[in-house]
Amino acid sequence: MTNDESLKNAIASRFGTPCVVIDLDIVERNIASAQRRCDAAGVHNRPHIKTHKSPQLAAMQLAAGARGITCQKLGEAEVMADAGVDDILIATNLLGAARCGSLAALQRRVSLKVCADNPVTLNAYAAAAADAGRPLDVLIECDTGQQRAGVETPAEALVLVDQISASAHLRFTGLLYYPPLDGWPATQAFHDAVRAGLIKRALTAEIVSTGGTPNFKHIGELRGATEHRAGTCIFNDRMMVRAGVASADDCALTVYTSVVSRAGETRGILDSGSKTLTSDTGGNLEGFGDILEHPSARLHKFAEEHGFLDLSQCNDKPSIGDVVRVVPNHACVVVNMVDQLVAVRGGDIVDVLPVAARGKLV
Amino acid sequence: MTNDESLKNAIASRFGTPCVVIDLDIVERNIASAQRRCDAAGVHNRPHIKTHKSPQLAAMQLAAGARGITCQKLGEAEVMADAGVDDILIATNLLGAARCGSLAALQRRVSLKVCADNPVTLNAYAAAAADAGRPLDVLIECDTGQQRAGVETPAEALVLVDQISASAHLRFTGLLYYPPLDGWPATQAFHDAVRAGLIKRALTAEIVSTGGTPNFKHIGELRGATEHRAGTCIFNDRMMVRAGVASADDCALTVYTSVVSRAGETRGILDSGSKTLTSDTGGNLEGFGDILEHPSARLHKFAEEHGFLDLSQCNDKPSIGDVVRVVPNHACVVVNMVDQLVAVRGGDIVDVLPVAARGKLV
Repeated sequence: MTNDESLKNAIASRFGTPCVVIDLDIVERNIASAQRRCDAAGVHNRPHIKTHKSPQLAAMQLAAGARGITCQKLGEAEVMADAGVDDILIATNLLGAARCGSLAALQRRVSLKVCADNPVTLNAYAAAAADAGRPLDVLIECDTGQQRAGVETPAEALVLVDQISASAHLRFTGLLYYPPLDGWPATQAFHDAVRAGLIKRALTAEIVSTGGTPNFKHIGELRGATEHRAGTCIFNDRMMVRAGVASADDCALTVYTSVVSRAGETRGILDSGSKTLTSDTGGNLEGFGDILEHPSARLHKFAEEHGFLDLSQCNDKPSIGDVVRVVPNHACVVVNMVDQLVAVRGGDIVDVLPVAARGKLV
Repeated sequence: MTNDESLKNAIASRFGTPCVVIDLDIVERNIASAQRRCDAAGVHNRPHIKTHKSPQLAAMQLAAGARGITCQKLGEAEVMADAGVDDILIATNLLGAARCGSLAALQRRVSLKVCADNPVTLNAYAAAAADAGRPLDVLIECDTGQQRAGVETPAEALVLVDQISASAHLRFTGLLYYPPLDGWPATQAFHDAVRAGLIKRALTAEIVSTGGTPNFKHIGELRGATEHRAGTCIFNDRMMVRAGVASADDCALTVYTSVVSRAGETRGILDSGSKTLTSDTGGNLEGFGDILEHPSARLHKFAEEHGFLDLSQCNDKPSIGDVVRVVPNHACVVVNMVDQLVAVRGGDIVDVLPVAARGKLV
């Protein structure tokens, strides 16, 4: 029996299938690689923990040199604060969390860095900070072409900077960018205009954050950037391989799943469906995952607990009972489906990591 | 302030957003309606709890007249058994659960009905039943055109029936169908052929199950059917409205979500993304949900925690801070993202239901 087969047996007999598994050797290599890329570019590394939602993995990233972490939800930050992380940036407008009191409650315990792209959010932040009794550090989220959240012009950014300056409860801390892959020059122009406005106001942006694993290709190209936040790079996935920032060998996360039916000569059914692998297309990737053991199998459709394989191009077809490993389109959303990750190293099961920050409402 | 606005404020200030909410008045009406449809067709109702994963809602279905429940995972059945449900059908090949011992462990406590479409699964079931020390009731899953799991011919079904009969640990209990909407006549032909074979063997199918909420249109049309299993009808969603088996007023589940950004004149951003509403397209529905307050808004794209609104067709555009309600494409996968459902009735918050059977591995 190969190492792989022996590990599959161990996982199936201990946990059953489906099972979401991470290879710690690859995880550590990916953590080191992200840190090296940031170091080489002269920016701090503030990994985005939305990908793994695990305090243990966050601790590994911090130990490797990261300067704090990035979260996408207040609930994620609560879990990380409970685990002792004290430098947390939350990269989104936190209106829901401000409204139910969670933001103020966490700000009372940990000094947070939060983001906003509009005056309503800033008002909610000021109220939360007043309630918490300590000022809140705010970054302005700027959109330089992605058409996601973020102010669309430097003038709008500066209006918000002035609103922050006028508040007794908020502190202007910096700027949050997510440059489009081909939009780093446009981001530079945007940033230079904002910086000019800040200089007139005798302000500086302590943090200028760029984001995204695919943007490692351009890291350091924004003059004035102080840090980079990337999430997916800790695990990688089909999207990152297609983006050219990871190879198949860099994919640390796989879903171990059983072939449970071979009804039909060219069909097969896995016990992983949209409730495990998710319907995320990774931005129009072909199918929903790579089957490591059967590269010609197409995982083309889901029921909730079933993945449908088209085996018509497969010479070596899987048999019922086989455990196969699937590299998903998008690791971040797969982790979000499960309560634990099984960690392996060198063919052995070495740990079970709770996805502690999953399932948070706000 | 309208009733709706007052409820939105109550939910946002108590739970924050996003928040998955069910209206119990509609839920009860939907439960009663499913039971009535089964009663009128002369078949038992065995609701599929994969939709809600809540013992409390299962208890409501049983109290309304359901004969047992259907689960899709062994882990779901464990939770339901813990809550006292003792008539459980698990409608899938449970290889992963058999392999890790979970099937035997549960069969020791509760007499389960399980499904299989192949000899490998039957062997695993026989081993689990031997281990549990009590025989396992097995239904043969039959595919009459959906190209999901299930044997494709009556002859294959009868081979498996014979394998069950030859096992000391298995009992042949029935047949599981999921007829295509236009495939009820073909299902009848399949079923008649299997029944003829059973008669030769002096066997009867105690349970003949049909499935699916859209198939309520044809319920009772299969001569010999004894029960129907439907899941989504307890909540309904955009898929069921499109399928013509529910109206907008029958949709009990909505996601309460805040407009957190209006960057761009015709754009808006919700705090519900693919990690809340999921990327399920509902089989090529337009967009990812209906915004009740803004029917012309198109929810056309997701980031993980953001939903992207195209407001170009919207005369009355939402403002930042507004809470809006989204009817999702597919209720079952949305419930699977969260640990609790907030239950409302007549404009008041009346309960918080744990999604107790969520996040099970096998």
